[in-house]
Amino acid sequence: MIRTHNAGSLRATDAGATVTLAGWVARRRDHGGVIFVDLRDASGVAQVVFREEDAHALRNEFCVRVTGEVTRRPAGNENPELPTGEVEVTAAELEVLSEAAPLPLPVDDQIEAGDDLRLKYRYLDLRRAGPARALRLRSRANQLARTVLHGHDFLEIETPTLTRSTPEGARDFLVPVRLQPGTWYALPQSPQLFKQLLMVGGMERYYQIARCYRDEDFRADRQPEFTQLDIEMSFVTEDDVIALGEEIVAALWSDLAGHEISRPIPRITWHDALARYGSDKPDLRYGVELTELTDYLRGTQFRVFAGAIDAGGYVGAVVMPGGAGQSRKELDGWQDWAKARGARGLAYVVLDAETGEPRGPVAKNLSPEHLGGLADAVGAKPGDAIFFAAAAHPREAQELLGAARIEIARRANLIDESAWAFCWVVDAPMFERTDEGGWTAVHHPFTSPNADWVDRFEEAPDRALAYAYDIVCNGNEIGGGSIRIHRGDVQRRVFDLLGITPEEARDKFGFLLDAFKYGPPPHGGIAFGWDRVCMLLAGADSIREVIAFPKTRGGFDPLTGAPTPITAQQRAEAGIDAKPKPQVAQHAGTAGPAAPVADPT
Amino acid sequence: MIRTHNAGSLRATDAGATVTLAGWVARRRDHGGVIFVDLRDASGVAQVVFREEDAHALRNEFCVRVTGEVTRRPAGNENPELPTGEVEVTAAELEVLSEAAPLPLPVDDQIEAGDDLRLKYRYLDLRRAGPARALRLRSRANQLARTVLHGHDFLEIETPTLTRSTPEGARDFLVPVRLQPGTWYALPQSPQLFKQLLMVGGMERYYQIARCYRDEDFRADRQPEFTQLDIEMSFVTEDDVIALGEEIVAALWSDLAGHEISRPIPRITWHDALARYGSDKPDLRYGVELTELTDYLRGTQFRVFAGAIDAGGYVGAVVMPGGAGQSRKELDGWQDWAKARGARGLAYVVLDAETGEPRGPVAKNLSPEHLGGLADAVGAKPGDAIFFAAAAHPREAQELLGAARIEIARRANLIDESAWAFCWVVDAPMFERTDEGGWTAVHHPFTSPNADWVDRFEEAPDRALAYAYDIVCNGNEIGGGSIRIHRGDVQRRVFDLLGITPEEARDKFGFLLDAFKYGPPPHGGIAFGWDRVCMLLAGADSIREVIAFPKTRGGFDPLTGAPTPITAQQRAEAGIDAKPKPQVAQHAGTAGPAAPVADPT
Repeated sequence: MIRTHNAGSLRATDAGATVTLAGWVARRRDHGGVIFVDLRDASGVAQVVFREEDAHALRNEFCVRVTGEVTRRPAGNENPELPTGEVEVTAAELEVLSEAAPLPLPVDDQIEAGDDLRLKYRYLDLRRAGPARALRLRSRANQLARTVLHGHDFLEIETPTLTRSTPEGARDFLVPVRLQPGTWYALPQSPQLFKQLLMVGGMERYYQIARCYRDEDFRADRQPEFTQLDIEMSFVTEDDVIALGEEIVAALWSDLAGHEISRPIPRITWHDALARYGSDKPDLRYGVELTELTDYLRGTQFRVFAGAIDAGGYVGAVVMPGGAGQSRKELDGWQDWAKARGARGLAYVVLDAETGEPRGPVAKNLSPEHLGGLADAVGAKPGDAIFFAAAAHPREAQELLGAARIEIARRANLIDESAWAFCWVVDAPMFERTDEGGWTAVHHPFTSPNADWVDRFEEAPDRALAYAYDIVCNGNEIGGGSIRIHRGDVQRRVFDLLGITPEEARDKFGFLLDAFKYGPPPHGGIAFGWDRVCMLLAGADSIREVIAFPKTRGGFDPLTGAPTPITAQQRAEAGIDAKPKPQVAQHAGTAGPAAPVADPT
Repeated sequence: MIRTHNAGSLRATDAGATVTLAGWVARRRDHGGVIFVDLRDASGVAQVVFREEDAHALRNEFCVRVTGEVTRRPAGNENPELPTGEVEVTAAELEVLSEAAPLPLPVDDQIEAGDDLRLKYRYLDLRRAGPARALRLRSRANQLARTVLHGHDFLEIETPTLTRSTPEGARDFLVPVRLQPGTWYALPQSPQLFKQLLMVGGMERYYQIARCYRDEDFRADRQPEFTQLDIEMSFVTEDDVIALGEEIVAALWSDLAGHEISRPIPRITWHDALARYGSDKPDLRYGVELTELTDYLRGTQFRVFAGAIDAGGYVGAVVMPGGAGQSRKELDGWQDWAKARGARGLAYVVLDAETGEPRGPVAKNLSPEHLGGLADAVGAKPGDAIFFAAAAHPREAQELLGAARIEIARRANLIDESAWAFCWVVDAPMFERTDEGGWTAVHHPFTSPNADWVDRFEEAPDRALAYAYDIVCNGNEIGGGSIRIHRGDVQRRVFDLLGITPEEARDKFGFLLDAFKYGPPPHGGIAFGWDRVCMLLAGADSIREVIAFPKTRGGFDPLTGAPTPITAQQRAEAGIDAKPKPQVAQHAGTAGPAAPVADPT
């Protein structure tokens, strides 16, 4: 090393020692004849004192090496906010290792810079304390998770990222293969199929911090490449996977957030989560639960509610504490909010703060009996507002109320930003209706029905439940997984229900089905959305903050300018326009794609 | 867990316990009324005893769950070769978890199966002890390396795999971007540029077990995707990187090969390696060093040697101990061997085993003086053979002799297959001549000249040396790296020498050069070819053995059938044939490609 000490490590006990430091000029202050420089390296900051004539050329972010004696600062000049604040280094030698041009992005934690500027000069951005801390935290998170997993005999195994493309994988990135012109790989959306194959291969416990790819609309918090902590285990039940998942998040939050998660983490069924919170990823930092009013309002003349009830649907409500105090404009604002979400509006009743008398447009439409018991039915007090939703399809109304619940918590300041609230959402449904009236798998077609339903899911596909579970933190889904089907008969029945013929199954999932002929073990797993986990631990509001070189929306990289057009020569050499050769005879059983199934993280 | 014990964990002390095991039927033996089954899981094998009527349906590789009592085996029936050999489990309950069809690949460590079959049924192959052990070893290797690195405060940081394509990157895989039709990403050949940017960003110590991509002819031991342990450090010298590298390999070999590497690992200069071993990755498990004879043979009339000497070239020799005993056919075989390597032949002299008299075609062409002192000059004894090479370009002849050296060691059984011989090859040349008479960088254009040459490499580019180092194990390059240039003036001079104009530099390496304007620290690093490291540790002869799902030559995956043609619809949706939009105004300094520089592993 070209230095003897880390700047941030100097303490009063080092006084008298001659040290060599190397780092960056974080700040200089001229004091007539003497220049004070904050020298920053990865370990922290130390104050270095120069004679003016030695250091007049130093500018911010010059990279320097300094040798000098550590001395105690004069009494009264200590800086208690700095770990090195009791000492300074009196420079005897200075070497400028490299100079810095005027900075397009000041290396200053106080300055708010736009994302494009930060990402274009990410190497300057990372010299700031916050961004650097986020990457350090992520490295530590990896280490903590690995420690838990190795403690349970998991193997870290790399799976391929150049895999088989599938016509259905409309979000797969494709990669032309120069050596076999006309043929393409796909980048995987997850290692799902390969980790299941590893279980068939008897590896029993697999994990990988795996790069995954999805070529789709990059919403606020998506990246074309993202990372998941991917786990699969054999001979386990749902409880085993959940216990392991809890051990991992407990280790992470204890070390990185100073928060001891109380275990077991509460479990809520998917149906309860929808019924109580209007969401399959409920934020449990606050209450504000939904109340179903379908039975209570049965017989109402109010057309909106009656229509939903008559259609076998749902009417429900959520209470905004103190919401009666909102202005007319604020209450109108809720209508705009609901319309922006695609709803027709958000019916409401406000309870007079003094009398508790229900008022508002809906109140006029309800019978005196329905109005009279309403506050009790929904648990509202005088001064509250009650928002309603009704729909023939219960989930639609529940999700509107769930979104209103979140918005209520925000507007009414009900969220304790320092709190951590975890839950497992379990017993997810197996199937949902397609627009065409058939059935589709809510997770993926290899997800196992639970013990109650495995022998009879055909009887009521809409009610059949899966061994599928998501872990939720403060309303964010941070991981999810399932127990997989390992019985051929069950798999065939699931395919039948989904309308997948044996031929289609073979074409779509051929090699996995082949593998399952040879004694597959019961197995299941989980995948954590690692970017999001690290984002929450870092207290950041975007996964970009915990990615070294993230892309902006649209997949653009302001630093390198990727993606770019390619030249005609590149096109030709990569075989992009080559006609594929007539297919060589396929090995039996390799006709299936490396398919679009994935843990739904 | 659906079992209470791991099969391989049962011991005599468990006798009397009722256990539930789950695993695979590895072998069954019928003994009239009783069936013995070897039950295998990831932990090992245990013997289970069934009544015949309970287990007659069991076949190899059925996946089963068994509950029963552990009993000591009857005296004389113990199997001392099995850790569980003192006990057996008397089955009370049997559940067949899944059945197995007749096996296309027997799960049997004794059977040699072809690679295509093994890879097509990789999930059966991995149930065999050897392949499973290789993946376990690799997982452990990762863990060991990470432990060393975290002990030195390295951060694990993920770098992008969807990066900027460059017209020069003829071996880049390209990826069309659906959301920006007509534009493409490239998959990186290494994280080189990003890890250097992280150093500019002040992260100081970075590592990553990184997936890398190269779309090129897959020689015997190449894969389109491969893995390197990638490391970069700031404020270091070559010695620091080398010391860290040694600590990593020492930890690996100690734990996984039971071999304590003696440190420091010897260093040999690149020029010495060529001179003594005819290779920049010398196998030091045996001697058989080359001898230069250029001076000794000066003045010879033998045209082949004289021509090389007169051209300012090189003549040298390598001795095959006992090589005089080879038949005429064997000696002729060496000529074929040399021709297969592209040489014109391999001149030789054999020394009579009795008299030491030199014989053979070359002997006739040498003067009595040259012949008389030859044995002493090359250190040969009676009965040895001496092979010669001569060329105007020394490296050409040295490499022929180096290859002959390896072949001699093989044919003369000089290789101790149980030995481990490590060395660092240091002081590599900076530049070599291009066919056009210019200069090209031997490593990459960011490699730093060493202190001797940094101020004057232009004086003798062919002799200028770099801070570049490779680590070699038993003749395999397992890692390599360099100290990078961080001074703008030095970088400009290197570009000048390489004939790269400022405009070209900007176009090729724009964003890295931009970053280097802002106080880059001195830095350097290393990358280990992780597949090869694990291959050597596993005692395997191909990197495929330490990859979970490797591809065959040509990048074909026998398991999934990748790569495949794509449909017209996929083509259209992926935007493969879209014309790029006119370029939006580029940010200044982002015009450079995510370029083809890489640690040369």
